[in-house]
Amino acid sequence: MNESLVRQIEFVKEIDKLKYVLRRTRLLHSDRRENDAEHSWHLAVMAIVLAEHANEPVDLLKVLKMVLIHDIVEIDSGDVFIYDTQQNHTNTVEELKAARRIFGILPQAQAEALIEVWKEFEAGQTAEARFARALDRLEPLLQNTSNDGGTWKEFDVRYDQVVAKKKVIAKGSDQIWAFAEDLLKQNLEKGILKK
Amino acid sequence: MNESLVRQIEFVKEIDKLKYVLRRTRLLHSDRRENDAEHSWHLAVMAIVLAEHANEPVDLLKVLKMVLIHDIVEIDSGDVFIYDTQQNHTNTVEELKAARRIFGILPQAQAEALIEVWKEFEAGQTAEARFARALDRLEPLLQNTSNDGGTWKEFDVRYDQVVAKKKVIAKGSDQIWAFAEDLLKQNLEKGILKK
Repeated sequence: MNESLVRQIEFVKEIDKLKYVLRRTRLLHSDRRENDAEHSWHLAVMAIVLAEHANEPVDLLKVLKMVLIHDIVEIDSGDVFIYDTQQNHTNTVEELKAARRIFGILPQAQAEALIEVWKEFEAGQTAEARFARALDRLEPLLQNTSNDGGTWKEFDVRYDQVVAKKKVIAKGSDQIWAFAEDLLKQNLEKGILKK
Repeated sequence: MNESLVRQIEFVKEIDKLKYVLRRTRLLHSDRRENDAEHSWHLAVMAIVLAEHANEPVDLLKVLKMVLIHDIVEIDSGDVFIYDTQQNHTNTVEELKAARRIFGILPQAQAEALIEVWKEFEAGQTAEARFARALDRLEPLLQNTSNDGGTWKEFDVRYDQVVAKKKVIAKGSDQIWAFAEDLLKQNLEKGILKK
């Protein structure tokens, strides 16, 4: 049997666990929490249909790889809530260890390539990473808006805190940020978000 | 507000419903049924790590688009079980209507382009479609194997029927079919599948 294929199938089986990693946010108009696999799928389709709005031309294949694998480390490290002030939620030692274990199931060159894609997403310094990160901020904004405040209400997160986190959307897409900023203002006016 | 973006966001919200469309198959070593969004995510990551085994060189971006959107029509038409002998499960009138309604939320040129990608997947006549369809057959094989027969046992599906359905894997990848055929034989020997 092809040795690379055997390792790749082991990896395919391992990442099934991402379907059990729950995020704080809930599906649109729902009380059902979203899991990381569904979330990653949603970002990928968003990347396909929204790519034209990126500030700079992006390599869509690279963006798709990023959003599809960006949360895989959470199989080991778990999801950290974005408004959690106690825990750092990017590029922790634990996440790097998780990346090495999980991607390390793959043949070495492939593992290294995917860890690089993941690090590039985390660093947010390339056009593709900026756009992918914008999508990652947009989805929960739509969800919380549909759920009368969702996690903002649940964890008493205020308008200025949300704006501070969501502003990075502008780094990836001014167009999408214009939409997001408008939606946040509407939420403020409706009392869904509080000052 | 950018008119295209407004329509694209409406589409992004609409496809959230795919997270509620349940397949017959269950997650690995689990009794929890998989939903179409998770399934699509899994196929996309499989495409990334298994692309080297395609029989012909494939445009990976095209394959990713295919697997990410291939089940979106099921928001309207529902999942049809592959071993259901009463219902046809490809390219039905109902599915085409669903494709037109759901992708039709997007700006027209984008809607038409994605409907073409979906039709190409359904037709299975290009290298990308053959490879994408191979992945779509592989995932439930891994799931049912891990679940002591899973849907094969539940619906009394026999070895020859499974082989007949799974054989299309070979059209996309002889390497992956060699793996799959071996796994099916092991399942037969262990009594997980019956003649």
